Order: sequence, then C-alpha cells, then structure tokens
Amino acid sequence: MAAEFELIETYLAPLTSGHAGAFGLKNDAAVFSGGGDKSVVVTADTLVQGVHFLAEDPPELVARKLLRVNLSDIAAMGGKPFGYLLSVALPPDSGEAWFAGLARGLAEDQAAFRVGLLGGDTVSTVGPPVLSLTALGRVSGDRVLRRDGARAGDDLYVSGSIGDAALGLLVLQDRLAEVPEAAGRALAERYRVPQPRLELGQALAEGGFARTAIDVSDGLVADLEHLARGARLAAELWAAEIPVSPAALELLATAPEQLETVLTGGDDYELLFSARESQRESLSELAQQLDLPITRIGRFSKGEGVSVLGHDGAPLALSRSGWVHLRDDSKKTS
Amino acid sequence: MAAEFELIETYLAPLTSGHAGAFGLKNDAAVFSGGGDKSVVVTADTLVQGVHFLAEDPPELVARKLLRVNLSDIAAMGGKPFGYLLSVALPPDSGEAWFAGLARGLAEDQAAFRVGLLGGDTVSTVGPPVLSLTALGRVSGDRVLRRDGARAGDDLYVSGSIGDAALGLLVLQDRLAEVPEAAGRALAERYRVPQPRLELGQALAEGGFARTAIDVSDGLVADLEHLARGARLAAELWAAEIPVSPAALELLATAPEQLETVLTGGDDYELLFSARESQRESLSELAQQLDLPITRIGRFSKGEGVSVLGHDGAPLALSRSGWVHLRDDSKKTS
Repeated sequence: MAAEFELIETYLAPLTSGHAGAFGLKNDAAVFSGGGDKSVVVTADTLVQGVHFLAEDPPELVARKLLRVNLSDIAAMGGKPFGYLLSVALPPDSGEAWFAGLARGLAEDQAAFRVGLLGGDTVSTVGPPVLSLTALGRVSGDRVLRRDGARAGDDLYVSGSIGDAALGLLVLQDRLAEVPEAAGRALAERYRVPQPRLELGQALAEGGFARTAIDVSDGLVADLEHLARGARLAAELWAAEIPVSPAALELLATAPEQLETVLTGGDDYELLFSARESQRESLSELAQQLDLPITRIGRFSKGEGVSVLGHDGAPLALSRSGWVHLRDDSKKTS
Repeated sequence: MAAEFELIETYLAPLTSGHAGAFGLKNDAAVFSGGGDKSVVVTADTLVQGVHFLAEDPPELVARKLLRVNLSDIAAMGGKPFGYLLSVALPPDSGEAWFAGLARGLAEDQAAFRVGLLGGDTVSTVGPPVLSLTALGRVSGDRVLRRDGARAGDDLYVSGSIGDAALGLLVLQDRLAEVPEAAGRALAERYRVPQPRLELGQALAEGGFARTAIDVSDGLVADLEHLARGARLAAELWAAEIPVSPAALELLATAPEQLETVLTGGDDYELLFSARESQRESLSELAQQLDLPITRIGRFSKGEGVSVLGHDGAPLALSRSGWVHLRDDSKKTS
C-alpha cells in the first residue's frame, strides 16, 4: 500500500473540498466558525473490523455506515451536521483498494448529507482495521434536544419503522429459515445503510416540538429506558402501535417469535422522542411535510422503569437483560 | 473487565466535570458554545499499541501523551483548548486497571491544561488497544496560525530545545552505548511526556507575532519542509543555532553522530514558526515573559526546498529521505 501521506493526498484530501478550514488536510488541525449564536454538537463513534463489521463487507458500506451512525447522533440532538474527522488504523497489508473504497463511500454520503472531511489521522496497526469518526454539527443554542427532558404526561413517538435493521442482520447471518427474497434484501439494506433522521431532528429542535430525543441504536426498549432514566420517570410502550415495515411484517408472518428482535434488536437509527399532548396536530403535519411516519407509541408518567404493554393493555414480561418475552401477543402486535 | 457502561460511568464520566455540555456522557453527543466571534480548532490523533506505544508502557503516560500531542496541534494554530473526545478500542481481556490508569493520566493532564472530556466511544476489538482523541479549541477568527503563511525574508524561530525526545526514545530502546543516568532520564521524560506550547501558540496568534507555525512532530527538517512547501518558498536552517538541551549536549559529547537524530528525529512538539524581521524585539520579550527560549534558527527566501547550513555557512548534505548526512559539523554545531 502507498505511504500514509499519499493515501491522504489521493483519497482523503478531495473529500475536504468546499471546506477551507480543512486546509486540504495539510494542517494538523482544522478550523471552523463557531457560528454566532449557534452551539456546536459533537459526537464520536468507532467501528472495528471483526466486531462491528466483517472483513468481507464492502468498504464503501462500512464508511457510509460509520458516517451515518454519527450523523444519527447529531440528528438526535437536533443538529445540522457540517463536517467530520476520520481516524483510520490499518494493518500494513491492507490493500489500497480497500482504502479507496472507504473514500468512495464517504464521498457518496458526504455529498448526500452536505458534510465535508475536516481532518483526522491515518496510522498503522498490528491488529484489524479500526475506524473512528468524529462528527460536528450546529444547533441554535437553546434548542438542543437532550435525553433528560421528558415530563410526566408526555406522549412518546418514534419515526419510520422499527426492527428492520435487527431482522436484516439475522438475514445477513443466514439465521432465519424462510425469508422472502425481496423482503430479505430490503431488511439487509436497512442494517447496512442506516438513515439518519436529520431533517426530523432539526425540525423537532427548531420548532420546539420535542422535549427529549434519542436515536434508537441499542434497541427500542433499551433506548426508551435511557429516556425514562434521564427524566426520572416511568414510560409505557404500546407494543401494538410500534410501526413495522411491510418487509418486516412479511417476515414476522412466518416467524412471529422475531417480534422480540423488533422490540429489542437495535440499529434502527430512528428517532424516539417525547412531546406535549398539545403537539399532536403539529407532529402529524410535520410527518406529512417530511413524508416520514411519526407514530405515537406510548407515554411518560411519574414513577420509574419501562413497561411494554400488549394489545389488551396488560404488561408483557420483560427480562432484566432488556429482552422482551412475549406472551402470545405476536398476532395482535403485527 | 466491567461492561462498557460501567467503565464509562466509573472512569470517564468524572472527567466531564464542569462541562455541562458533556451531559455526564449520558448523551450520544456533546454540545458547546460556538463562542461568538471565535473560531473552533479541531484535530484528531490516534495511538496504537505495538506501533506508537508498548504494552508495558504505563497507561497513565500513554493517556497523557495522547492528550498532549493533540493539544500540541491546537497550540500550533494558536488555539486555546477546552475539550476532547476519546474513542477507545480495547481487547476484552484488558485489565480494568489499565483503563483506570488511562483515566488517571487524563485526569491529571486535563486539570493541568484546563480541558474536559466531552464524549467519545468505548468498544471492543480483537486486536491491540487503539486510542483516538479529538481535541477542540478556540481562537479569534482571523488569528489562526496556518502552515502556509511564511513570506520571503521572514525569520525562522523554534521554541524550547530540539532533539531531546528522539534521543530519549533511543535511550528507552537501549540503543545508545554510554548514557549519563540523569541525562538519560531527562531525555526519556521528554519523549514520554511532551509539552504542548499552548501559551506560546496563543501569544503568537493573539499578538500577531507569527506568520506561520507548525509543531515539530515529524522532525525539525521535515516540518520545516512543510512550512516551505506550504508557502512555496525556500528555507534555510542554521544547524549551529539549533537550541539543544544540556542533557542532549552531554549525550552528544560522547555520541556526536547523534546530531542527525536531533535534526530529524521528531516528537519534539516545540513550535517552529516564521515572523517578520521587525518582530525580533517583541519575540525576545515574549520569550522572557513566558520563560521559554525562542531561538532564531533560519530564514525564508524565494525559491524552494530546505537547506541545512553548517557553521561555515556551507550546506550540509541532505538525503531525499529527509535524513541529514553531516559533514563533520558535529563539533561546530554542538
């Protein structure tokens, strides 16, 4: 493989175009405007080969996922992303093609999300590739969405649909018996290329619609626990209301036991948020405007802990691991 | 080792104290003020075990070095650091003591440099530990020091002393025959715990003293090449003027061939910068004020490339690798 300097010059420097403060990656640090009354939102996530992705995964997809999971964190705080830093640790025998693929994936997605590379580091490792990305965004100072803002009586909402990514991972791992081909492809795609809900996050923050938000990465139940704990409240989740995609429904029809996966699987990167009851109409309009489903799936109340309620309003058993053990509620829920 | 959540809660969350925007690491992203008319400076560096540090190196020192090399990049742009994000990839069998040591080292240095942990990621790896740090600072919008600002006729300066760290590495690797004990300890310490020149960088930027700056990490000659190339100028470096510490002098007395190491070894983390001739007096005053040597060691002129000149003004041979082959100039220079 080419030397670090050449790799950066050839593959990464072009990704800085339009960002003068990146200095074409020729400086050790990048500079950007604080943006007047704006606050800056910053987050970092790391993907390790053999843990978060496989050696045979196309590097384009790995890069896009890495960027998107970070952008999802920016979305959850209502931020508008503008740049990122990339740190890559690669074994010396990595093919240059892999690095080139990484840069191609980043180029594609940074155009889609209007962000640019600001800096980073490219080093050798004696282990598997490790990719760290730090993403930066801006948000109006007092409009940041946090995890601890829910109040008792707030409605609980989720965007898009839940469970596709976790089912998609099972499809990719060949762990499901019968998977309709088109459905399998759609689910796998959602696992591989998550969609950060940036427009929604920004609208929720700017419009003051949401009181608290999180992106669903650990799993719907686990992430709701984060919101409930953050606000020192109890939350109930109405299993029958959870939005599920047509592909997931098709799969659940033959494998109803996978509803557990839907509720707890994670990697959805949808936004889970709370809002006052008085916002119901505004949120319904926002959903139409963004052409993105926003579904009311529960509410917050005084107390603590998360209850998952079945169709009849009775709680489903929830193990300490956060794993839901369903009591024959699969048909009602789907 | 404890679960990721507990590690973060126990060891990292305390490092966010005083930084409300870090939300105690309970959010996925942190938020900070853009700072009005200030610009934000951001940089990232990665250390890999087995490449940049050894398994037996104390984690406190690894952490401090990681933070300091990033702060040095902030210093080179004239920034005042305020926070950082830390991404750690660790093998599952890492002892918790190692992680605790890492946190102790960060705690010590973040107090010294008045920065706080803002976020990051802690993940598993099947390879050796990989530590990525992103540092953030602020600088007045139009005062950022860049690498491409030198003009023909500018003086070239360097802070502190050059060569200690590279010699210190040789000491640690036991690659030098006779090393006086106290000198060896002093040199090794400079390799292990670099000193980011933050006050100097900020003074150079705020006072408008410097036209361009870089921190010496690749080596004095190589980093001067960065400045010369950035400005499309030639630069000459006066070998006899390069400031060398008493410990390095003592070692060079018995190993004069190590002057090569001084000129090209790197890891000094001193600031190398250019200034107008008219700033000589101001810089001399600044050196006194900061109690830090600032030495004039060369100048920029029209043309290209870096010449290293010996005591008699004749150029020393410089190989393409950036490695200096001295022509019996060692005595004159030391």
